Amino acid sequence: MSRSETPDVAAVQAFLLDFQGRACRALEEEDGAACFREDLFAGEGGALARPRVLADGAVIERAAVNFSHAAGRELPGAASARRPEITGATYGAVSVSMIVHPRNPYAPTSHANFRLFVAHRDGGEPVWWFGGGFDLTPYYGFEEDAVEWHEMAKAACDPFGAGLYAEYKKACDEYFYLEHREEPRGIGGLFFDDLSDGGFARCFRFVRGAADRYLAAYRAILARRKLLPYGERERSFQLLRRGRYVEFNLLYDRGTRFGLQSGARVESILAALPPLVAWRYDWQPEPGTPEAELYEKFLRPRDWIGARS
Amino acid sequence: MSRSETPDVAAVQAFLLDFQGRACRALEEEDGAACFREDLFAGEGGALARPRVLADGAVIERAAVNFSHAAGRELPGAASARRPEITGATYGAVSVSMIVHPRNPYAPTSHANFRLFVAHRDGGEPVWWFGGGFDLTPYYGFEEDAVEWHEMAKAACDPFGAGLYAEYKKACDEYFYLEHREEPRGIGGLFFDDLSDGGFARCFRFVRGAADRYLAAYRAILARRKLLPYGERERSFQLLRRGRYVEFNLLYDRGTRFGLQSGARVESILAALPPLVAWRYDWQPEPGTPEAELYEKFLRPRDWIGARS
Repeated sequence: MSRSETPDVAAVQAFLLDFQGRACRALEEEDGAACFREDLFAGEGGALARPRVLADGAVIERAAVNFSHAAGRELPGAASARRPEITGATYGAVSVSMIVHPRNPYAPTSHANFRLFVAHRDGGEPVWWFGGGFDLTPYYGFEEDAVEWHEMAKAACDPFGAGLYAEYKKACDEYFYLEHREEPRGIGGLFFDDLSDGGFARCFRFVRGAADRYLAAYRAILARRKLLPYGERERSFQLLRRGRYVEFNLLYDRGTRFGLQSGARVESILAALPPLVAWRYDWQPEPGTPEAELYEKFLRPRDWIGARS
Repeated sequence: MSRSETPDVAAVQAFLLDFQGRACRALEEEDGAACFREDLFAGEGGALARPRVLADGAVIERAAVNFSHAAGRELPGAASARRPEITGATYGAVSVSMIVHPRNPYAPTSHANFRLFVAHRDGGEPVWWFGGGFDLTPYYGFEEDAVEWHEMAKAACDPFGAGLYAEYKKACDEYFYLEHREEPRGIGGLFFDDLSDGGFARCFRFVRGAADRYLAAYRAILARRKLLPYGERERSFQLLRRGRYVEFNLLYDRGTRFGLQSGARVESILAALPPLVAWRYDWQPEPGTPEAELYEKFLRPRDWIGARS
């Protein structure tokens, strides 16, 4: 571990801005109709937010791909809760987060986030770490998609350590979990935080690889599912399951809480919420239906590598 | 103050169960089509939950009127955060909470909660207090409704002290506030907690009066607005504003957090969420529209008494 290696914030920012551009183009191409709207907000001390939101597309009902460079005088509690040593330090963070809510219930929602955090203490060397990951939330389960998704995640990890995929997959399963329902948000992916092992250059290489693979894999799944025929029943289940997404984001998600606490732009943070959502009282899927299968086969931590027959 | 006066939990429970019944009948009568579904859950130590939910009515899109008698070995953090002296005490709580989401966008959503909390410490006398209140969340503002609502709230308070209405109204404005949007949830009403001043009998009388007046006043407003003609525009605004309700309940509401922390039945707690909700990115009402008027004239703390011309 070498936290003392100075992080190249400008290089990470350049990569993330480029990634944002590529992600938006890829999604616009898959959509074929709608375009991203771009906003730009500049703040003090180099702070910059470039949220991009696509609404009401042919394929994508809503996507938010947000870049932000946050700088602050004092770390919000959500960021320093597990790091008492940097409470009150000034900080900078560059990040991209994206969430895609497709219109077709057979196409999964996906989320990714990649960020670099740097905290400056008086007189000390900067403390930095990468965090992020990606996860997939299907409404209807396709084993092929799940296996492909996790093979991609493993391929992103393997060059950096034999146990890395297992570790980050487990962290993802644990993080994207609705405790009150005892239910995972989806089929997971990777989740990492406090990443500085091996130095800045190596960590940055891992993050770049993860981001690029995520984008390619999600695009492939979206392309495969976006035109499947569906009806009122599937739409209705999708809206209900989107409710779980809202519950997770507002009740648990540290990124959302951090954003709202740090006074970031509310519309950018909540742009990730689904456009239309339903809650029903005490609804349960009937046994033997595809909706029940989602709960039984997909919404539980599973070893997807090797599940391909 | 006489916290030592033994609270008559059975009498409060009987009142709240009766209130639940009257509220459900009143709402069924206003609806004219749908009926409440009743569930019953008995737990250890006299714990009892009787959630009632009306779904997909002609007038009421969803209403949840929940009675619960909770008993526990250890107070959840959400309840004892401001009372370190009773951390870890066993407790009992009887409560009714109700939320009504009408279908017609001109009819406001309303929420009420009335509860008695009793904490038992080893060897000490029981510590008890009432809490609760009610508030109104219009989608389109009617000054007549707002004035009537607050006159009702004042009438419930006035027999119990000259400054009470002002105090509880202010507490309500402060509690039902979305900090991240700097926006009140609605036009408020009453909010009280830690109520034991004057002894049990007097406090219970206040709570009974507040509950009964709430029910009559909300019913009158619902009856007046439930048949007004509306279109896609009003429906769409209603769905968007319901998003604020979800944000409040999941991000801030202590009752929701207490319930989810204490392991209460998730479906009962979240039955209060609206059935259909929308989020739009960066939507602003156009100046001069009824939607803008809601923000300008109604979604800000106002002195409604005396606003009637």
